[in-house]
Amino acid sequence: MTADDAIKDDAMTVVALAGGVGGAKLADGLARLLGARLTVVVNTGDDFEHLGLHISPDLDTVMYTLAGIANPHTGWGIAGETWNFMGEIARLGGPAWFRLGDRDLATHAVRTGRLRAGETLTAVTAALCRALDIAPALVPMSDDPVRTMIRTKSGELPFQHYFVRLACAVPVTGIRYDGAEAAVLNPALAQARPVAIVICPSNPYLSIDPILGVPGMRAWMTAQRVPVVAVSPIVGGAAIKGPAAKIMGELGVPVTAAAVARHYAGVIDGIVIDAADAGLAAEIEAAGIAVKIAPAVMRAAADRVSLARACLAFAGELAEDRGR
Amino acid sequence: MTADDAIKDDAMTVVALAGGVGGAKLADGLARLLGARLTVVVNTGDDFEHLGLHISPDLDTVMYTLAGIANPHTGWGIAGETWNFMGEIARLGGPAWFRLGDRDLATHAVRTGRLRAGETLTAVTAALCRALDIAPALVPMSDDPVRTMIRTKSGELPFQHYFVRLACAVPVTGIRYDGAEAAVLNPALAQARPVAIVICPSNPYLSIDPILGVPGMRAWMTAQRVPVVAVSPIVGGAAIKGPAAKIMGELGVPVTAAAVARHYAGVIDGIVIDAADAGLAAEIEAAGIAVKIAPAVMRAAADRVSLARACLAFAGELAEDRGR
Repeated sequence: MTADDAIKDDAMTVVALAGGVGGAKLADGLARLLGARLTVVVNTGDDFEHLGLHISPDLDTVMYTLAGIANPHTGWGIAGETWNFMGEIARLGGPAWFRLGDRDLATHAVRTGRLRAGETLTAVTAALCRALDIAPALVPMSDDPVRTMIRTKSGELPFQHYFVRLACAVPVTGIRYDGAEAAVLNPALAQARPVAIVICPSNPYLSIDPILGVPGMRAWMTAQRVPVVAVSPIVGGAAIKGPAAKIMGELGVPVTAAAVARHYAGVIDGIVIDAADAGLAAEIEAAGIAVKIAPAVMRAAADRVSLARACLAFAGELAEDRGR
Repeated sequence: MTADDAIKDDAMTVVALAGGVGGAKLADGLARLLGARLTVVVNTGDDFEHLGLHISPDLDTVMYTLAGIANPHTGWGIAGETWNFMGEIARLGGPAWFRLGDRDLATHAVRTGRLRAGETLTAVTAALCRALDIAPALVPMSDDPVRTMIRTKSGELPFQHYFVRLACAVPVTGIRYDGAEAAVLNPALAQARPVAIVICPSNPYLSIDPILGVPGMRAWMTAQRVPVVAVSPIVGGAAIKGPAAKIMGELGVPVTAAAVARHYAGVIDGIVIDAADAGLAAEIEAAGIAVKIAPAVMRAAADRVSLARACLAFAGELAEDRGR
């Protein structure tokens, strides 16, 4: 399979695993190539209830990005947002640490209303995606609650309290995915027959590990017998966005694309790294993981498509290698 | 007791019963005279859950009115409101029949968040009122759910579906207050020792009857042994606002201030009616209910205070009559 094969063949589907901003950008690149043949499995470990609303930050970031309405300045929320709700929250003495835009709120309210009426998060997400004309399938990793808990020296914090309220200022000593053992993998995956699986450049600990931690997810990936390709979110020893580098440092892991590759050992067949990290290729390959060099920093929309194409091409090459 | 006695004596408190717009206006007039010595018992029969949010329309109308931020054009919501949330709800295919402004939403979100955290509606309301610098005590009639259900020929409708979604277009054949039997009267009333009780000019069926229907409310009123004075929401054979006249007609009740007085027979000692209805005084007095003629249509803020003063004066006169 070449990249163009995957892109042209109507039956060829791809599954991507994604968290927030970086993952959403690559998912968008893949979506522009594959349309409805893309399924994005999205982290829900950072979901939480706030002001009575069920908020799914990663689902929203991917959804808004694929709908072309993401706020490019914040990395979350909707472009052209207004803040009158937050102004009133401040007046009422409500919690102002998690910023909710007036438009963004509609997503949370519709989701919460439908969840309370008994729908699954998968069904609600599908309805929201239909309304936003999103062709790919966006599926939460599970319809059951999994909640990422951040361990610190002074105790455990719910993810959003660590991530937003404390702005990641507290050193992380460990991470736990509460509810993961009991969570049921999204049943939509049982129908998916991908020709490749792409792990997007999301935070390995905060975004991808919760997905991989849902019982049956790793087994499902293995059972597909297709190349699994990751994109390193660490480029040149730093995270492109977010606290990945900071957390890796705090957990005593080298802040390199090679460490990301090793983190995914046993899960991925290959990793895409930026030319800035070409010097790490030998180290990664020594761990039995194939390497593809490609521009991994997505600034413009074209970069997303290029990186998506590189991922598909890489998966195609790995599939051919297997076929030999 | 004269009106001025009640207004000047710091220990003299008044309890008012109120629903939406008309009730909120008189409550505001009373609040301007009495400040913290006023307790407003507010109907929660039209509370409902919408988009996952707990919405208390009458509590909000009274609260916004007393805070001086009520939207004068709509009769609900906050002045200077914006509608970006509703725009996005429409895009997402969410329910658009109940209009929620961006600022107004903050009230619902704070309330819902605190209710879900285990606080009572009374406690949440008190916190919101503190944030809005409201001196009087606003107390929901009960912390337990009572839901006004509208009976029609084609079945029963939850109140907001009748009132907002169908704009009261369906004829009413009966009204039921679901949960009323099991509701516990707001415990704050046990401490209240009012010198007068005022039934504000709210809809007798939709706003006041749910309050009177909470077990113990009528007994509490009787036990106070103080004048109970109502203000007729029907003036000149029409409702000042809302569907009161329409519903009275549909229920086969004459649309007159006299019918309102008879509706409250056994509960009130006197009723304030507008000069337009002076011809009904004899009919009302024949039913054993005292009558006071006063301008009952509140257009400006000064009208609210005048009517409030008339109510207190009337209660004072009735108390003196009793004393004789």
